[in-house]
Amino acid sequence: MRIAIVIFDRFTALDAVGPYEVLSRLPDARVSFVATEPGPKVADTGWLTMVADTALDDLPSPNILVVPGGVGQDEAMHDDKLLDWVRTAHRTSTWTASVCTGALILGAAGVLNGRRATSHWLALDVLPEYGAQQALERVVFDGKVVTGAGVTAGIDLALRLAARIAGDEVAQTIQLSMEYDPQPPFDAGSPTRAPESIVARLRSASRFLRSG
Amino acid sequence: MRIAIVIFDRFTALDAVGPYEVLSRLPDARVSFVATEPGPKVADTGWLTMVADTALDDLPSPNILVVPGGVGQDEAMHDDKLLDWVRTAHRTSTWTASVCTGALILGAAGVLNGRRATSHWLALDVLPEYGAQQALERVVFDGKVVTGAGVTAGIDLALRLAARIAGDEVAQTIQLSMEYDPQPPFDAGSPTRAPESIVARLRSASRFLRSG
Repeated sequence: MRIAIVIFDRFTALDAVGPYEVLSRLPDARVSFVATEPGPKVADTGWLTMVADTALDDLPSPNILVVPGGVGQDEAMHDDKLLDWVRTAHRTSTWTASVCTGALILGAAGVLNGRRATSHWLALDVLPEYGAQQALERVVFDGKVVTGAGVTAGIDLALRLAARIAGDEVAQTIQLSMEYDPQPPFDAGSPTRAPESIVARLRSASRFLRSG
Repeated sequence: MRIAIVIFDRFTALDAVGPYEVLSRLPDARVSFVATEPGPKVADTGWLTMVADTALDDLPSPNILVVPGGVGQDEAMHDDKLLDWVRTAHRTSTWTASVCTGALILGAAGVLNGRRATSHWLALDVLPEYGAQQALERVVFDGKVVTGAGVTAGIDLALRLAARIAGDEVAQTIQLSMEYDPQPPFDAGSPTRAPESIVARLRSASRFLRSG
Protein backbone atom coordinates (compact mmCIF):
# COMPACT_ATOMS: atom_id res chain seq x y z
CA MET A 1 0.00 0.00 0.00
CA ARG A 2 1.64 3.17 -1.24
CA ILE A 3 0.94 6.26 0.85
CA ALA A 4 1.99 9.68 -0.46
CA ILE A 5 2.17 12.58 1.99
CA VAL A 6 2.66 15.88 0.19
CA ILE A 7 5.00 18.43 1.77
CA PHE A 8 5.99 21.90 0.65
CA ASP A 9 7.78 24.92 2.08
CA ARG A 10 5.95 26.34 5.09
CA PHE A 11 3.73 23.30 5.64
CA THR A 12 2.48 22.69 9.18
CA ALA A 13 4.66 19.88 10.50
CA LEU A 14 2.04 18.21 12.70
CA ASP A 15 -0.52 18.19 9.84
CA ALA A 16 1.79 15.76 8.06
CA VAL A 17 3.39 13.92 10.99
CA GLY A 18 0.14 13.10 12.83
CA PRO A 19 -1.21 11.01 9.92
CA TYR A 20 2.30 9.69 9.20
CA GLU A 21 2.68 8.29 12.68
CA VAL A 22 -0.63 6.40 12.36
CA LEU A 23 -0.57 5.31 8.72
CA SER A 24 3.09 4.22 8.74
CA ARG A 25 2.10 1.60 11.35
CA LEU A 26 -0.45 -0.06 9.05
CA PRO A 27 0.51 -3.51 7.80
CA ASP A 28 2.05 -3.26 4.33
CA ALA A 29 2.33 0.53 4.51
CA ARG A 30 5.01 2.18 2.44
CA VAL A 31 5.08 5.93 2.96
CA SER A 32 6.70 8.54 0.72
CA PHE A 33 6.96 12.26 1.31
CA VAL A 34 6.34 13.75 -2.09
CA ALA A 35 6.92 17.24 -3.47
CA THR A 36 7.12 19.05 -6.76
CA GLU A 37 10.83 19.43 -6.07
CA PRO A 38 12.22 16.76 -3.71
CA GLY A 39 14.59 17.90 -0.98
CA PRO A 40 14.38 19.70 2.35
CA LYS A 41 11.18 21.59 3.21
CA VAL A 42 11.02 24.03 6.12
CA ALA A 43 7.85 24.01 8.22
CA ASP A 44 5.79 27.16 8.69
CA THR A 45 6.99 27.85 12.21
CA GLY A 46 10.45 28.09 10.73
CA TRP A 47 12.71 25.74 12.63
CA LEU A 48 11.81 22.27 11.46
CA THR A 49 13.12 20.73 8.25
CA MET A 50 11.71 17.56 6.77
CA VAL A 51 12.89 15.89 3.60
CA ALA A 52 10.67 15.17 0.59
CA ASP A 53 12.18 11.97 -0.73
CA THR A 54 10.10 11.49 -3.86
CA ALA A 55 9.16 13.64 -6.84
CA LEU A 56 5.48 13.81 -7.71
CA ASP A 57 6.21 12.30 -11.12
CA ASP A 58 7.75 9.23 -9.51
CA LEU A 59 4.59 8.34 -7.58
CA PRO A 60 1.63 9.10 -9.84
CA SER A 61 -0.79 6.54 -8.39
CA PRO A 62 -0.53 6.16 -4.62
CA ASN A 63 -3.28 4.21 -2.87
CA ILE A 64 -3.61 7.00 -0.34
CA LEU A 65 -2.69 10.64 -0.71
CA VAL A 66 -2.56 13.01 2.24
CA VAL A 67 -2.29 16.78 1.80
CA PRO A 68 -1.37 18.89 4.85
CA GLY A 69 -1.91 22.61 5.27
CA GLY A 70 0.17 25.45 6.60
CA VAL A 71 1.03 28.98 5.60
CA GLY A 72 2.68 27.65 2.42
CA GLN A 73 -0.65 26.27 1.21
CA ASP A 74 -1.29 29.67 -0.41
CA GLU A 75 1.64 29.11 -2.73
CA ALA A 76 0.92 25.39 -3.13
CA MET A 77 -2.58 26.28 -4.36
CA HIS A 78 -0.94 28.02 -7.31
CA ASP A 79 1.53 25.22 -8.07
CA ASP A 80 -0.01 23.81 -11.25
CA LYS A 81 2.22 20.77 -11.19
CA LEU A 82 1.03 19.89 -7.69
CA LEU A 83 -2.63 20.50 -8.56
CA ASP A 84 -2.33 18.32 -11.69
CA TRP A 85 -0.75 15.57 -9.62
CA VAL A 86 -3.51 15.76 -7.00
CA ARG A 87 -6.20 15.56 -9.69
CA THR A 88 -4.54 12.62 -11.43
CA ALA A 89 -3.65 10.73 -8.25
CA HIS A 90 -7.19 11.22 -6.96
CA ARG A 91 -8.60 9.40 -10.00
CA THR A 92 -7.02 6.11 -8.99
CA SER A 93 -6.60 6.55 -5.24
CA THR A 94 -8.46 4.49 -2.67
CA TRP A 95 -8.47 7.45 -0.28
CA THR A 96 -7.75 11.12 -0.84
CA ALA A 97 -7.22 12.99 2.40
CA SER A 98 -6.38 16.46 3.67
CA VAL A 99 -5.60 17.93 7.06
CA CYS A 100 -6.20 21.55 8.05
CA THR A 101 -5.91 24.00 5.14
CA GLY A 102 -4.70 21.15 2.95
CA ALA A 103 -8.42 21.03 2.09
CA LEU A 104 -7.95 24.26 0.13
CA ILE A 105 -5.34 22.52 -2.01
CA LEU A 106 -7.77 19.67 -2.67
CA GLY A 107 -10.35 22.35 -3.42
CA ALA A 108 -8.09 24.18 -5.87
CA ALA A 109 -7.49 20.85 -7.61
CA GLY A 110 -11.25 20.41 -8.01
CA VAL A 111 -11.49 17.40 -5.73
CA LEU A 112 -14.02 18.91 -3.30
CA ASN A 113 -16.60 20.00 -5.84
CA GLY A 114 -20.02 18.83 -4.65
CA ARG A 115 -18.66 17.26 -1.48
CA ARG A 116 -19.01 17.90 2.25
CA ALA A 117 -15.64 18.83 3.69
CA THR A 118 -13.90 20.40 6.65
CA SER A 119 -10.71 22.39 7.21
CA HIS A 120 -9.11 24.51 9.92
CA TRP A 121 -12.00 26.41 11.56
CA LEU A 122 -10.54 29.72 10.37
CA ALA A 123 -10.59 28.53 6.74
CA LEU A 124 -13.99 26.83 6.67
CA ASP A 125 -15.69 29.76 4.95
CA VAL A 126 -13.36 29.40 1.98
CA LEU A 127 -14.52 25.88 1.13
CA PRO A 128 -17.70 26.93 -0.75
CA GLU A 129 -15.48 28.80 -3.23
CA TYR A 130 -14.44 25.31 -4.39
CA GLY A 131 -17.96 23.94 -4.56
CA ALA A 132 -17.74 22.21 -1.21
CA GLN A 133 -20.29 22.23 1.59
CA GLN A 134 -18.42 23.31 4.72
CA ALA A 135 -18.81 21.28 7.92
CA LEU A 136 -17.49 22.27 11.35
CA GLU A 137 -16.63 18.68 12.18
CA ARG A 138 -13.45 16.95 13.27
CA VAL A 139 -13.27 14.53 10.33
CA VAL A 140 -15.56 14.39 7.31
CA PHE A 141 -15.86 11.34 5.06
CA ASP A 142 -17.53 11.91 1.68
CA GLY A 143 -17.00 8.92 -0.54
CA LYS A 144 -13.28 8.37 -0.77
CA VAL A 145 -12.46 11.95 0.17
CA VAL A 146 -11.60 12.48 3.84
CA THR A 147 -10.93 15.93 5.23
CA GLY A 148 -9.78 16.81 8.74
CA ALA A 149 -10.07 19.99 10.79
CA GLY A 150 -7.02 21.94 12.01
CA VAL A 151 -3.57 20.44 12.65
CA THR A 152 -4.18 17.84 15.39
CA ALA A 153 -7.29 16.49 13.63
CA GLY A 154 -4.95 14.56 11.36
CA ILE A 155 -4.42 12.02 14.12
CA ASP A 156 -8.16 11.35 14.49
CA LEU A 157 -8.56 11.29 10.71
CA ALA A 158 -5.77 8.76 10.26
CA LEU A 159 -7.06 6.46 13.00
CA ARG A 160 -10.51 6.44 11.41
CA LEU A 161 -8.90 5.76 8.05
CA ALA A 162 -6.81 2.96 9.58
CA ALA A 163 -10.00 1.36 10.87
CA ARG A 164 -11.62 1.49 7.43
CA ILE A 165 -8.50 0.06 5.78
CA ALA A 166 -7.42 -2.60 8.23
CA GLY A 167 -10.26 -2.99 10.74
CA ASP A 168 -10.98 -1.73 14.22
CA GLU A 169 -8.54 -4.05 15.96
CA VAL A 170 -5.57 -2.82 13.94
CA ALA A 171 -6.60 0.80 14.47
CA GLN A 172 -6.96 0.22 18.22
CA THR A 173 -3.55 -1.45 18.31
CA ILE A 174 -2.02 1.57 16.62
CA GLN A 175 -3.88 3.90 19.00
CA LEU A 176 -2.56 2.03 22.03
CA SER A 177 0.98 1.86 20.63
CA MET A 178 0.85 5.67 20.30
CA GLU A 179 -0.80 5.90 23.72
CA TYR A 180 -3.41 8.20 22.19
CA ASP A 181 -5.43 8.90 25.31
CA PRO A 182 -5.55 12.69 24.98
CA GLN A 183 -5.90 14.84 28.07
CA PRO A 184 -5.86 18.46 26.88
CA PRO A 185 -5.25 20.80 29.81
CA PHE A 186 -8.01 23.17 28.64
CA ASP A 187 -11.30 22.84 26.82
CA ALA A 188 -10.10 25.39 24.30
CA GLY A 189 -9.50 23.36 21.15
CA SER A 190 -12.73 24.25 19.36
CA PRO A 191 -14.07 27.70 18.45
CA THR A 192 -17.42 26.59 19.87
CA ARG A 193 -15.99 26.18 23.38
CA ALA A 194 -12.77 28.25 23.65
CA PRO A 195 -12.99 31.59 25.47
CA GLU A 196 -14.70 34.07 23.15
CA SER A 197 -11.93 36.63 23.46
CA ILE A 198 -9.39 34.11 22.16
CA VAL A 199 -11.62 33.05 19.27
CA ALA A 200 -12.12 36.69 18.34
CA ARG A 201 -8.42 37.50 18.50
CA LEU A 202 -7.42 34.58 16.27
CA ARG A 203 -10.25 35.42 13.90
CA SER A 204 -9.19 39.02 13.54
CA ALA A 205 -5.57 37.99 12.97
CA SER A 206 -6.53 35.46 10.33
CA ARG A 207 -5.77 35.98 6.71
CA PHE A 208 -8.81 33.83 5.87
CA LEU A 209 -11.29 36.33 7.25
CA ARG A 210 -11.74 38.32 4.08
CA SER A 211 -12.50 35.22 2.10
CA GLY A 212 -15.49 34.36 4.36
CA MET B 1 13.90 31.46 24.85
CA ARG B 2 16.08 28.73 23.41
CA ILE B 3 14.38 25.35 23.03
CA ALA B 4 16.46 22.31 22.12
CA ILE B 5 14.69 19.22 20.81
CA VAL B 6 17.02 16.25 20.59
CA ILE B 7 16.69 13.93 17.61
CA PHE B 8 18.61 10.79 16.69
CA ASP B 9 18.30 7.95 14.19
CA ARG B 10 15.14 5.94 14.73
CA PHE B 11 13.41 8.53 16.94
CA THR B 12 9.61 8.56 16.97
CA ALA B 13 8.65 11.52 14.79
CA LEU B 14 5.49 12.51 16.67
CA ASP B 15 7.33 12.44 20.03
CA ALA B 16 9.36 15.39 18.74
CA VAL B 17 6.87 17.11 16.44
CA GLY B 18 3.98 17.22 18.94
CA PRO B 19 5.95 19.38 21.42
CA TYR B 20 7.54 21.30 18.53
CA GLU B 21 4.19 22.36 17.14
CA VAL B 22 3.14 23.74 20.54
CA LEU B 23 6.39 25.20 21.85
CA SER B 24 7.39 26.84 18.56
CA ARG B 25 4.22 28.98 18.86
CA LEU B 26 5.30 30.46 22.20
CA PRO B 27 6.24 34.15 22.11
CA ASP B 28 10.02 34.50 21.84
CA ALA B 29 10.52 30.81 21.10
CA ARG B 30 13.57 29.83 19.13
CA VAL B 31 13.70 26.10 18.48
CA SER B 32 16.70 24.02 17.44
CA PHE B 33 16.81 20.34 16.59
CA VAL B 34 20.02 19.14 18.18
CA ALA B 35 22.03 15.95 17.73
CA THR B 36 25.46 14.57 18.48
CA GLU B 37 26.06 14.69 14.74
CA PRO B 38 23.89 17.27 12.91
CA GLY B 39 22.28 16.20 9.65
CA PRO B 40 19.37 14.06 8.51
CA LYS B 41 17.84 11.62 10.99
CA VAL B 42 15.45 8.88 9.90
CA ALA B 43 12.46 8.19 12.14
CA ASP B 44 11.84 4.72 13.56
CA THR B 45 9.04 3.83 11.18
CA GLY B 46 11.58 4.30 8.41
CA TRP B 47 10.17 6.76 5.90
CA LEU B 48 10.43 10.16 7.53
CA THR B 49 13.62 12.20 7.57
CA MET B 50 14.06 15.28 9.73
CA VAL B 51 17.16 17.42 9.88
CA ALA B 52 19.13 18.13 13.05
CA ASP B 53 20.38 21.66 12.44
CA THR B 54 22.54 22.15 15.51
CA ALA B 55 25.35 20.20 17.17
CA LEU B 56 25.00 19.57 20.89
CA ASP B 57 28.20 21.53 21.53
CA ASP B 58 26.71 24.60 19.87
CA LEU B 59 23.77 24.79 22.27
CA PRO B 60 25.04 23.84 25.71
CA SER B 61 22.51 25.83 27.77
CA PRO B 62 19.00 25.82 26.28
CA ASN B 63 16.18 27.13 28.45
CA ILE B 64 14.13 24.05 27.61
CA LEU B 65 15.33 20.66 26.48
CA VAL B 66 12.99 18.03 25.09
CA VAL B 67 14.05 14.43 24.57
CA PRO B 68 11.83 12.17 22.46
CA GLY B 69 11.84 8.37 22.41
CA GLY B 70 11.69 5.75 19.71
CA VAL B 71 13.46 2.54 18.87
CA GLY B 72 16.76 4.44 18.56
CA GLN B 73 16.60 5.41 22.21
CA ASP B 74 18.44 2.15 23.01
CA GLU B 75 21.45 3.41 21.13
CA ALA B 76 21.02 7.00 22.33
CA MET B 77 21.20 5.72 25.93
CA HIS B 78 24.73 4.58 25.21
CA ASP B 79 25.82 7.78 23.48
CA ASP B 80 28.08 9.28 26.15
CA LYS B 81 28.28 12.61 24.38
CA LEU B 82 24.49 12.91 24.39
CA LEU B 83 24.20 11.84 28.03
CA ASP B 84 26.89 14.36 29.06
CA TRP B 85 25.06 17.09 27.17
CA VAL B 86 21.72 16.20 28.83
CA ARG B 87 23.34 16.25 32.28
CA THR B 88 25.05 19.60 31.64
CA ALA B 89 22.08 21.26 29.93
CA HIS B 90 19.81 20.08 32.73
CA ARG B 91 21.92 21.96 35.30
CA THR B 92 20.98 25.34 33.82
CA SER B 93 17.67 24.56 32.11
CA THR B 94 14.36 26.04 33.20
CA TRP B 95 12.58 22.88 32.06
CA THR B 96 13.90 19.43 31.20
CA ALA B 97 11.33 17.31 29.38
CA SER B 98 10.94 13.92 27.80
CA VAL B 99 8.24 12.21 25.75
CA CYS B 100 7.69 8.46 25.58
CA THR B 101 10.88 6.41 26.04
CA GLY B 102 12.89 9.62 25.97
CA ALA B 103 12.47 9.27 29.74
CA LEU B 104 14.94 6.39 29.62
CA ILE B 105 17.53 8.72 28.11
CA LEU B 106 16.92 11.23 30.90
CA GLY B 107 17.20 8.27 33.28
CA ALA B 108 20.50 7.09 31.81
CA ALA B 109 21.81 10.66 32.20
CA GLY B 110 20.90 10.55 35.91
CA VAL B 111 18.23 13.22 35.68
CA LEU B 112 15.36 11.08 37.03
CA ASN B 113 17.08 9.88 40.20
CA GLY B 114 14.67 10.37 43.12
CA ARG B 115 11.91 11.78 40.93
CA ARG B 116 8.42 10.70 39.92
CA ALA B 117 8.29 10.14 36.18
CA THR B 118 6.35 8.54 33.37
CA SER B 119 7.15 7.02 29.99
CA HIS B 120 5.46 4.90 27.34
CA TRP B 121 3.29 2.41 29.27
CA LEU B 122 5.39 -0.48 27.96
CA ALA B 123 8.58 1.08 29.36
CA LEU B 124 7.29 2.22 32.75
CA ASP B 125 8.81 -0.73 34.60
CA VAL B 126 12.27 0.30 33.47
CA LEU B 127 12.15 3.68 35.23
CA PRO B 128 13.03 2.37 38.74
CA GLU B 129 16.35 1.14 37.31
CA TYR B 130 17.24 4.85 37.12
CA GLY B 131 16.06 5.67 40.62
CA ALA B 132 12.71 7.04 39.43
CA GLN B 133 9.29 6.34 40.86
CA GLN B 134 7.13 5.21 37.94
CA ALA B 135 3.70 6.80 37.44
CA LEU B 136 1.08 5.65 34.94
CA GLU B 137 0.04 9.23 34.23
CA ARG B 138 -0.22 11.29 31.06
CA VAL B 139 2.20 14.03 32.17
CA VAL B 140 4.27 14.14 35.36
CA PHE B 141 5.82 17.33 36.73
CA ASP B 142 8.50 16.86 39.39
CA GLY B 143 10.28 20.15 39.97
CA LYS B 144 11.62 21.27 36.64
CA VAL B 145 11.55 17.78 35.16
CA VAL B 146 8.49 16.99 33.05
CA THR B 147 7.93 13.55 31.58
CA GLY B 148 5.18 12.48 29.20
CA ALA B 149 3.65 9.10 28.42
CA GLY B 150 3.80 7.52 24.95
CA VAL B 151 4.08 9.46 21.69
CA THR B 152 0.92 11.61 21.59
CA ALA B 153 1.35 12.65 25.25
CA GLY B 154 3.94 15.16 24.03
CA ILE B 155 1.13 17.44 22.89
CA ASP B 156 -0.52 17.48 26.32
CA LEU B 157 2.87 17.89 27.97
CA ALA B 158 3.80 20.85 25.81
CA LEU B 159 0.48 22.62 26.32
CA ARG B 160 0.84 22.27 30.09
CA LEU B 161 4.40 23.55 29.81
CA ALA B 162 3.21 26.46 27.64
CA ALA B 163 0.73 27.41 30.36
CA ARG B 164 3.44 27.40 33.04
CA ILE B 165 5.77 29.45 30.84
CA ALA B 166 3.42 31.99 29.28
CA GLY B 167 0.11 31.65 31.13
CA ASP B 168 -3.19 29.93 30.48
CA GLU B 169 -4.36 32.39 27.84
CA VAL B 170 -1.34 31.85 25.63
CA ALA B 171 -1.61 28.08 26.02
CA GLN B 172 -5.32 28.20 25.15
CA THR B 173 -4.56 30.34 22.11
CA ILE B 174 -2.02 27.78 20.93
CA GLN B 175 -4.50 24.96 21.60
CA LEU B 176 -7.18 26.68 19.53
CA SER B 177 -4.76 27.54 16.72
CA MET B 178 -3.91 23.82 16.53
CA GLU B 179 -7.60 22.95 16.89
CA TYR B 180 -6.67 20.47 19.61
CA ASP B 181 -10.11 19.13 20.36
CA PRO B 182 -9.27 15.43 20.18
CA GLN B 183 -11.93 12.94 19.21
CA PRO B 184 -10.26 9.52 19.19
CA PRO B 185 -12.43 6.98 17.37
CA PHE B 186 -11.87 4.37 20.08
CA ASP B 187 -11.28 4.38 23.82
CA ALA B 188 -8.16 2.33 23.27
CA GLY B 189 -5.33 4.73 24.01
CA SER B 190 -4.56 3.58 27.53
CA PRO B 191 -3.60 0.08 28.71
CA THR B 192 -6.19 0.49 31.48
CA ARG B 193 -9.06 0.73 28.99
CA ALA B 194 -7.96 -0.82 25.68
CA PRO B 195 -9.22 -4.33 24.89
CA GLU B 196 -7.23 -6.79 27.03
CA SER B 197 -6.22 -8.90 24.05
CA ILE B 198 -4.58 -5.90 22.39
CA VAL B 199 -2.75 -4.88 25.57
CA ALA B 200 -1.49 -8.44 25.97
CA ARG B 201 -0.32 -8.69 22.38
CA LEU B 202 1.63 -5.42 22.51
CA ARG B 203 3.07 -6.41 25.87
CA SER B 204 4.31 -9.77 24.62
CA ALA B 205 5.86 -8.14 21.54
CA SER B 206 7.63 -5.51 23.61
CA ARG B 207 11.34 -5.52 24.08
CA PHE B 208 10.83 -3.83 27.46
CA LEU B 209 9.13 -6.85 29.02
CA ARG B 210 12.28 -8.46 30.36
CA SER B 211 13.30 -5.29 32.13
CA GLY B 212 10.08 -5.24 34.18
